[in-house]
Amino acid sequence: MQKAYLHHGQHQSGGSGTTSLSATAVILGGSLLTYLITEKIKKDSPHVYAKEVSLDEIRKAHDTVRKDLPEYTMDEIVKHNAPSAGIWVTYGVGVYDITSFVPKHPGSDKVMLAAGGAIDPFWHIFQQHNTHEVLSLLETYRIGNLRPDDVVGTKDLHDPWSGEPKRHPILKPATLKPFNAEPPASVLVDSFLTPNEFFYVRNHLPVPEVDIKSYELDMENEKTGKSKTIRFADLLKYPQHTVTATIMCGGNRRSEMMDVKPIKGLPWGASAVGNAQWTGARLCDVLRDMGVRPGDEDGHVQFEGLDTDPTSTPYGASIPLAKAMDPRGDVILAYEMNGQPLNRDHGFPVRVIVPGVVGSRNVKWLGKIIVSRNESPSHWQQNDYKSFSPSTDWDTVDFKSAPAIQNMPITSAICTPAGGETVKVEDGYVTVKGYAWSGGGSEIVRVDLSADGGKTWIVAKLDESERGTGPGRHWSWSLWSAKVPIKAGQKGPIEILSKAVDSNYNTQPESFANIWNLRGVVGNAYSRVKVNVK
Amino acid sequence: MQKAYLHHGQHQSGGSGTTSLSATAVILGGSLLTYLITEKIKKDSPHVYAKEVSLDEIRKAHDTVRKDLPEYTMDEIVKHNAPSAGIWVTYGVGVYDITSFVPKHPGSDKVMLAAGGAIDPFWHIFQQHNTHEVLSLLETYRIGNLRPDDVVGTKDLHDPWSGEPKRHPILKPATLKPFNAEPPASVLVDSFLTPNEFFYVRNHLPVPEVDIKSYELDMENEKTGKSKTIRFADLLKYPQHTVTATIMCGGNRRSEMMDVKPIKGLPWGASAVGNAQWTGARLCDVLRDMGVRPGDEDGHVQFEGLDTDPTSTPYGASIPLAKAMDPRGDVILAYEMNGQPLNRDHGFPVRVIVPGVVGSRNVKWLGKIIVSRNESPSHWQQNDYKSFSPSTDWDTVDFKSAPAIQNMPITSAICTPAGGETVKVEDGYVTVKGYAWSGGGSEIVRVDLSADGGKTWIVAKLDESERGTGPGRHWSWSLWSAKVPIKAGQKGPIEILSKAVDSNYNTQPESFANIWNLRGVVGNAYSRVKVNVK
Repeated sequence: MQKAYLHHGQHQSGGSGTTSLSATAVILGGSLLTYLITEKIKKDSPHVYAKEVSLDEIRKAHDTVRKDLPEYTMDEIVKHNAPSAGIWVTYGVGVYDITSFVPKHPGSDKVMLAAGGAIDPFWHIFQQHNTHEVLSLLETYRIGNLRPDDVVGTKDLHDPWSGEPKRHPILKPATLKPFNAEPPASVLVDSFLTPNEFFYVRNHLPVPEVDIKSYELDMENEKTGKSKTIRFADLLKYPQHTVTATIMCGGNRRSEMMDVKPIKGLPWGASAVGNAQWTGARLCDVLRDMGVRPGDEDGHVQFEGLDTDPTSTPYGASIPLAKAMDPRGDVILAYEMNGQPLNRDHGFPVRVIVPGVVGSRNVKWLGKIIVSRNESPSHWQQNDYKSFSPSTDWDTVDFKSAPAIQNMPITSAICTPAGGETVKVEDGYVTVKGYAWSGGGSEIVRVDLSADGGKTWIVAKLDESERGTGPGRHWSWSLWSAKVPIKAGQKGPIEILSKAVDSNYNTQPESFANIWNLRGVVGNAYSRVKVNVK
Repeated sequence: MQKAYLHHGQHQSGGSGTTSLSATAVILGGSLLTYLITEKIKKDSPHVYAKEVSLDEIRKAHDTVRKDLPEYTMDEIVKHNAPSAGIWVTYGVGVYDITSFVPKHPGSDKVMLAAGGAIDPFWHIFQQHNTHEVLSLLETYRIGNLRPDDVVGTKDLHDPWSGEPKRHPILKPATLKPFNAEPPASVLVDSFLTPNEFFYVRNHLPVPEVDIKSYELDMENEKTGKSKTIRFADLLKYPQHTVTATIMCGGNRRSEMMDVKPIKGLPWGASAVGNAQWTGARLCDVLRDMGVRPGDEDGHVQFEGLDTDPTSTPYGASIPLAKAMDPRGDVILAYEMNGQPLNRDHGFPVRVIVPGVVGSRNVKWLGKIIVSRNESPSHWQQNDYKSFSPSTDWDTVDFKSAPAIQNMPITSAICTPAGGETVKVEDGYVTVKGYAWSGGGSEIVRVDLSADGGKTWIVAKLDESERGTGPGRHWSWSLWSAKVPIKAGQKGPIEILSKAVDSNYNTQPESFANIWNLRGVVGNAYSRVKVNVK
């Protein structure tokens, strides 16, 4: 039976530093904080947890009046909506002072949306908070009870998850709401183009329900002041452009980085990646009609999705205008994936495809395009999808100090055999397959494998994939296979390594330790798979 | 006194595999083969070396008739000019069968120029052969004596090195003929723009003497059959374009890679790099006048230098036409360096500047431009400046299997303190300075340093260098400095590491072992400097 630590002692409010865990992770994300939170609670607040309680009990905590604490009205609570006045929120009948939770953590902007009010409508969407650790941590901030008349119900709220599409069972979810899932790695190496149904899904919010007949794409050029709205049929009038491109989540392979040190984020394996043929209108053609001249490179193109949070704030990201306007950049507003209309999980009816660039800029369910002097102000552009030194932690991080990830670095992964598998040696060899990819349009030129810790290397055979459309325009991954020699008579566990080299002769770093970063992104160290030789 | 091993036993001719050392290295290069050759001779041919002789003696060997061997006429020798007939060469009165020397080694094309004839005129230019090891190795191939009337003299040959320019004594030569030299690393971090006189020099052949009044640049478009010749004044008519770009030798930092395992090539330190402002005509403008249309990306642009070998074959290299025609590629035909006319060592009067691309494609003393479907056929494009798996050796290498290096990978180097230096700790810190650069237009976004083997990392301060002209167009290095903390009371040797991260979030590999390659190029592992703390 799961056990939780419940707050029975004296509450500690304000900036005492009791809990310096990320507010975002708890309030908006945090499905994977078991270790972190438990350790933190044990370390910093042992005196406030008097007994262990079950998950059922902790789920009822915020709906239970604590007679040892005072009652507050919503009128009082709304005043506590800023760090200067203290940051209070309510959940059920519980009143919580989370002031010490907020500073310096990513997503403070998001957390602040609930400041001075109820978090119930937020957690109604972000149901990953419904865990032992998150709920028990929240209770440690309890300062009172909300007047019964002021309690915010969610019964009348539309369930934003009721319209989620059906998914193929091959996708293994990391979270269900929002839906984040990857296929088994062995599926990836079966085909150069990943079948649409097997393509990893990384959603940040509920999938919007879009009617193509009423679909509108808003466009705004902040430089000229011009704005307009086009419809789906208008997009079809632009010359059709097809590009084969790999899309990869910035957190792909995070689980391997987590082995070094815990990280907040989805524990992606190596399959948060796929390769598809995308068809749509060139963004540069569309932007030219918005008054952007070729060679006008200064600034950014912001994208907003039709997926929104409870405050109607859309998902957002941006790319440099130079990338958008470069005909060699191949950015498109895609409406087809592998010859089919986009499915709902992949952005129906229109998404942005930014070849060579981290998945999070390939905005789905595109609702608005803004040509701006500035990057997207969104949380996902400003305070996520950035990397830092391994020694930067949540107390020292300055998100402004790092650029938003655009082009992705080189990586490779062994897809078969899987870790822990028992493999058969045939004619002295084990057959190994995987993928390699480098962002920014670089081509994979070599993949090396070793089964002896790097003493000797075998060069893998690259698939005869398409070669891109010229230097610096190679957007697809390369699938590869290799026959790795195993010493005669060798039995038991061995580790197989892969590392790729791209057309810039960049290669992967050897270990995750020296590229570890607190967001767990751009994890591109050697792929290492331990198997048993039979 | 230096000692050499002289051949006194039975000669072994033909493909016995006695010596599988690179013919090129010996016949055209090879100033640094001491270790390799000595080891190889000791290992494979102990029976052919009866006694040690001095350098003076070995220098006379090829001018001395060996009475135990037969005499050949040049008429007989010229028949042995192909692998099928055996490959013979003469040097002085010596006749040598080098058949077993040639196969599979880079520069076979160059070696073959001397096949069936005298190598005297070649070695008159490539004087690095005048060493103990090279000369004694040659003598192991001796099969006879050349008829005295047929001996080729070099007295009447023009000394191709007589016109070499004066160089600044700060440049430390690795070889004098051709001149290859780098400044001390500490000089690099003194200024964002490297002074012309301090800029590393990498020549492959004698510096040509060019009169700007009679200078001609030949141009040919193989696709259209069109060709023309322009003069220096014609080049000045094109709009002037200035680009700040770092140029780096493909072999920069080779000496560090050599610590893993020997390599044939110049033992460059970390200073075969410099940063300058280059001014000239855009290559895309010039090519447009040669009938190349914008967007015509398929093919290559070959460059020939006015520097030539004894057969009048020029230095040559090529770049993709796509890079040449891309206005964002910033390729120029430069005639100024840091506001001064190019000096002779850097390509007077015109050289190509290919920002982000390995130095060897930045052809100096430009004599000819060829738009072609093919890469340059030159040795330096086809059989050099390529990288391979660490397990690829001279017996297994297939030069066709690897792409010619174009864009360079990310690297960084600690310039001060120098290795072995005794450093003073001030306020608990040691100040460290260096450079970081990434090819292909990527920008350096972070440099991390560690003085504890990677346990903790310090983020360096990047200089306020110019930020390039947009994403993917950042051609300059970044100079950086950091105060690296030293534990209180720590004395004695420590190792300081640096690693850089670029705007693609690529980073350096940790060690040279896993990127070692037989040409010793693209050596971009962590910079590691051992110093003594006082």
